[in-house]
Amino acid sequence: MTKKELKLHALVAPTETVVVSAYDENGKAEACTLAFYMVSSHKPPCVTIAINATQRRKTLKCLLEQKAFVLGFPSVNQAKETDYLGVESGYEADKLKNIGFTTSEAKQVHAPIINELHLSLECEVVHTVTVGSHTQVTGEVKRIIADETILNENGMVVLEKLQPLIYDEEQLRYLCIGEKVADAFKKGIEMKKTFQGDS
Amino acid sequence: MTKKELKLHALVAPTETVVVSAYDENGKAEACTLAFYMVSSHKPPCVTIAINATQRRKTLKCLLEQKAFVLGFPSVNQAKETDYLGVESGYEADKLKNIGFTTSEAKQVHAPIINELHLSLECEVVHTVTVGSHTQVTGEVKRIIADETILNENGMVVLEKLQPLIYDEEQLRYLCIGEKVADAFKKGIEMKKTFQGDS
Repeated sequence: MTKKELKLHALVAPTETVVVSAYDENGKAEACTLAFYMVSSHKPPCVTIAINATQRRKTLKCLLEQKAFVLGFPSVNQAKETDYLGVESGYEADKLKNIGFTTSEAKQVHAPIINELHLSLECEVVHTVTVGSHTQVTGEVKRIIADETILNENGMVVLEKLQPLIYDEEQLRYLCIGEKVADAFKKGIEMKKTFQGDS
Repeated sequence: MTKKELKLHALVAPTETVVVSAYDENGKAEACTLAFYMVSSHKPPCVTIAINATQRRKTLKCLLEQKAFVLGFPSVNQAKETDYLGVESGYEADKLKNIGFTTSEAKQVHAPIINELHLSLECEVVHTVTVGSHTQVTGEVKRIIADETILNENGMVVLEKLQPLIYDEEQLRYLCIGEKVADAFKKGIEMKKTFQGDS
């Protein structure tokens, strides 16, 4: 297969779009949209986000000052609002008010939950580092709150109900998730047993 | 809407599955599958991965020693091999050989590219930190290499051609990507102009 070298850029494979929210020093809720997010620890559960530190980002300032944030997961029918939260600055506009989103204070950290998002993680900032243009912020997840409508009978999130908004930075668009293609930890474990049997 | 508190866990919204590869001290290629990955800087382009540090992970040891790794993106038709690379240990088996994957040395870093994966990022380790159970490793992307078959005429990756393998940790399965639901930076910018016009 012919391999081709691409222009160096921050190539984003499809990634969940998230909305991070935090209080400013007056207790006003700020929020911005991010695509640079990952789970970063199982025990304790942590998430890490990366926010551009070369621009004036009010939400970044707020969450670093308050050492707390909420990570919310928008659904595909909130694409317009999510897009707006990523392109406007909290210094220029009252973003949440403009789009009619409301907030409640989180229970375990001092940060605002956006009520309209179906899934939210309350996070305490436990580590930060700036590498390149972005500050990486690791938050320990202190509480997970979800609308019942996106859960199954075991209290697990069903992605087909959450309908997460996937961001494609190559083509600058949002996608929905697709069909299941395989179980995890099944075919791989079968192969492992086969190869162990061979040796 | 009724909100429900969920059991605290490392809740993974759908995330790209990646295969990280590195050389051991003898120049043997090791690889393992990860779902904890994000882009972490635009300039210079960086990616961050989180690997469980509480278990014996040969690939983690290798990439920390060599300060280099390659991040490869498997496609949905490689789900079985990808699953296997995540469940077997490099200390127990010659994983890449077992599944018939071959490697070539990267050009910009001392790490192996898996030839069968359609998209690979050559990365130099520039920062590491352990938080909770996982070590977060930030790599500066030094070179991006892709099969021509997954590119459009502008040399951009087309996700419908790459067919990335999305991991759903809630239901322990792999998904494909779905349809486009919106353009990015379009409706949000229209809203921004509307609200600015109001003020």
